Amino acid sequence: MNDFPSKTLQMAVEAISSLPGVGTRSALRLALHLLRQPKEQIHHFSEAIAALADDIHYCSVCSMVSDGDICSICADSSRDHSTICVVESVRDVMSIEATGQYKGVYHVLGGIISPIDGMGPSDLTIASLVERVKEAKGDVEVILALSGDVEGETTSFYIYRQIEALGPKVSTLARGLGFGDDLEYADSITLGRSILNRQIFKP
Amino acid sequence: MNDFPSKTLQMAVEAISSLPGVGTRSALRLALHLLRQPKEQIHHFSEAIAALADDIHYCSVCSMVSDGDICSICADSSRDHSTICVVESVRDVMSIEATGQYKGVYHVLGGIISPIDGMGPSDLTIASLVERVKEAKGDVEVILALSGDVEGETTSFYIYRQIEALGPKVSTLARGLGFGDDLEYADSITLGRSILNRQIFKP
Repeated sequence: MNDFPSKTLQMAVEAISSLPGVGTRSALRLALHLLRQPKEQIHHFSEAIAALADDIHYCSVCSMVSDGDICSICADSSRDHSTICVVESVRDVMSIEATGQYKGVYHVLGGIISPIDGMGPSDLTIASLVERVKEAKGDVEVILALSGDVEGETTSFYIYRQIEALGPKVSTLARGLGFGDDLEYADSITLGRSILNRQIFKP
Repeated sequence: MNDFPSKTLQMAVEAISSLPGVGTRSALRLALHLLRQPKEQIHHFSEAIAALADDIHYCSVCSMVSDGDICSICADSSRDHSTICVVESVRDVMSIEATGQYKGVYHVLGGIISPIDGMGPSDLTIASLVERVKEAKGDVEVILALSGDVEGETTSFYIYRQIEALGPKVSTLARGLGFGDDLEYADSITLGRSILNRQIFKP
């Protein structure tokens, strides 16, 4: 597999196989597939990728990817701007939006505090979150919707410390058994928390 | 998943998910991965793809992808130019080269005769193969290394008819049980052919 018949093909395969979860064999298959397409289609593909570098903007309020200076969610006056859901990434916003259950706005951190990966608080958009809470004079609810692992908890705690004095209501996602989950297969931490945080039964 | 926060992101996801075996979810994951890379790296990726349209050449002798007018195999005088292995695609050449067992040259058809897919003999490089055999005054061996399905057999038969009068030796790949294959799990056609085409035992 090391001998490529063409340097150009090799470069394409190397670029494609730099994507996560794509090995050299798959990359070769994809490159040869592209090669069989009409030139215009290959250019269309290439330009769509280049646009990720050139045409992507980040919302100046919430740091979500956006086509303009303000994202469509922050620009939507029908949404509740006094509820700010803090998430790690763009994908989390898309996941929550897909539930159709949330009508507030977001704040995308762009990562999570993780000393191992060299990510500190200053690499995230925490300062601008603090600014948003300040501007609202604390009259907001901040939902810390970060993952439940050590990094997520650390980041949540750090943010809480930064904003608590400003007076916002701070909440976090409900954790417990998933809907339809079987008790038998639940891990004991989740099950334990589910019992401690039990809710009123509403039939 | 239908609501993309950015048209640019959506275009990239649509382009990536046009690749075979890549769904919308994977495409989003890959696009967001690219988005996290430095701009130069995104451009490098994009350019490597564009080069597939702009910089790929096909060998004027064997139609293999190549960086120049003649591929490295056809340009190699240490190879046996009187043995031409006819294959369907670039990938087949790479597979055979990877075995290290073949010292002849190739002829890449660029497909296979398949009326269902609208591929006829004139869509393939059969005419230039006939020309090569003619130029060698028939003093060549042509190995028909096509797949063993109906399309492969049809194409082999068609090529054979085109070149037989020119006098080349025409051979095809040995078919039989794979090395290490268990008789119990072999399909009956393969097993039947393996018995009919049995070879002298050389211990």
